[in-house]
Amino acid sequence: MKDLEIKSINLILNAWYQQLSIATELFDSLDDDQLLQPIAPQRNTGKYLLGHLTAVHDAILPLLDMGDRMYPLLEVFVREPEGADTTEPSIAVLRNCWTEVNARLKSKFAELEPADWFARHLAVSEEDFVKAPHRNKLNVVLNRMNHLSYHLGQLVLVKPKA
Amino acid sequence: MKDLEIKSINLILNAWYQQLSIATELFDSLDDDQLLQPIAPQRNTGKYLLGHLTAVHDAILPLLDMGDRMYPLLEVFVREPEGADTTEPSIAVLRNCWTEVNARLKSKFAELEPADWFARHLAVSEEDFVKAPHRNKLNVVLNRMNHLSYHLGQLVLVKPKA
Repeated sequence: MKDLEIKSINLILNAWYQQLSIATELFDSLDDDQLLQPIAPQRNTGKYLLGHLTAVHDAILPLLDMGDRMYPLLEVFVREPEGADTTEPSIAVLRNCWTEVNARLKSKFAELEPADWFARHLAVSEEDFVKAPHRNKLNVVLNRMNHLSYHLGQLVLVKPKA
Repeated sequence: MKDLEIKSINLILNAWYQQLSIATELFDSLDDDQLLQPIAPQRNTGKYLLGHLTAVHDAILPLLDMGDRMYPLLEVFVREPEGADTTEPSIAVLRNCWTEVNARLKSKFAELEPADWFARHLAVSEEDFVKAPHRNKLNVVLNRMNHLSYHLGQLVLVKPKA
C-alpha cells in the first residue's frame, strides 16, 4: 500500500509542476506591456496577478515549515486590492521572484518524506488537526494549485484573442 | 499505509467537491441575464462556460468507465467556439444538467474502491498505461478540478464588481 500512497503524492506534485509550467510559459509569452493590461475592464492587471501568485507561493514556505518567506515585501499583492500602488517592484523583478520562489519550493518539496506530507501545516494547531486531519501539507499544495488554475484562467485574457 | 493511501484519495475528492460547491454557489448567485454577459469583451459568456463545464464533466463518465454520457448534445459546448449557435439549450436546462451530471458522478465515485482510482482511464491503452502509470482515474479528477478552477476564475468576472 505504501506504493499507492507515494503514487498519489506524486500525482498531486506532478499536477502542481504541470500547472506551474503552464503559468511560467504564459508569463514568458507575455511582454511587459501586455502584463500591464487588465484581464477585463476595471479588473486586475497581469502584473498584479504575477505579483499575487508569487506572494501566495512565497507564503507556502513558512506555512509548510520550510523557512521564512523570500520576498515579504510582495505581501502588498495579497493585502492590497488592485489599484493600490503596486508600481514597485518592476515586472522584471517580479518575473525573477516568480522563478526563485518556485525553485525554492521545488527543492524543499523534494526533501519531504511521504509521511511528512500528511503532517499538519502550520496554520492549524495540533488540537484542531486531530479534528481535521485533512489540513495537512499535501492539502496546501492542492489548494494552491486550484488558486493558480483560477488565476491562469484570468491571465489568458490578457493575451490578444487569436 | 492503507490509511494514508485512502487519505490522499479523500484529499483529492474533498477538494473536487469543494470546488464544485463553489461553482454551484456561483451559478446559483447569477441570474440568467448575468450568465448571458461575456467574462470580458468578445470572450465566452457565463452561459457558454456553464454548458462547457457541464459537458466536460459529463464526459468524465465514459472516460472512467462509468457509463454513457447523460447529455451528448452538450458536446457543442466543447467542440464549438463561443459565438457558435449555442442558444439551445436554455440556461434553465443547462442549470439542471449541471446538477444532474455532478450528482451522477458523485454516486459513481462513491462506488469505487481505493485501488480502482489507480487503474487506467479509458483514453489510455493498457500498453501506454504501463509506460505512464500516472494516467489513472484519480488523475482525471485532478485534471478536471484544475479545469474547473480555471473557468471559475473567469466566471467571477461576470459578477458586477463590488
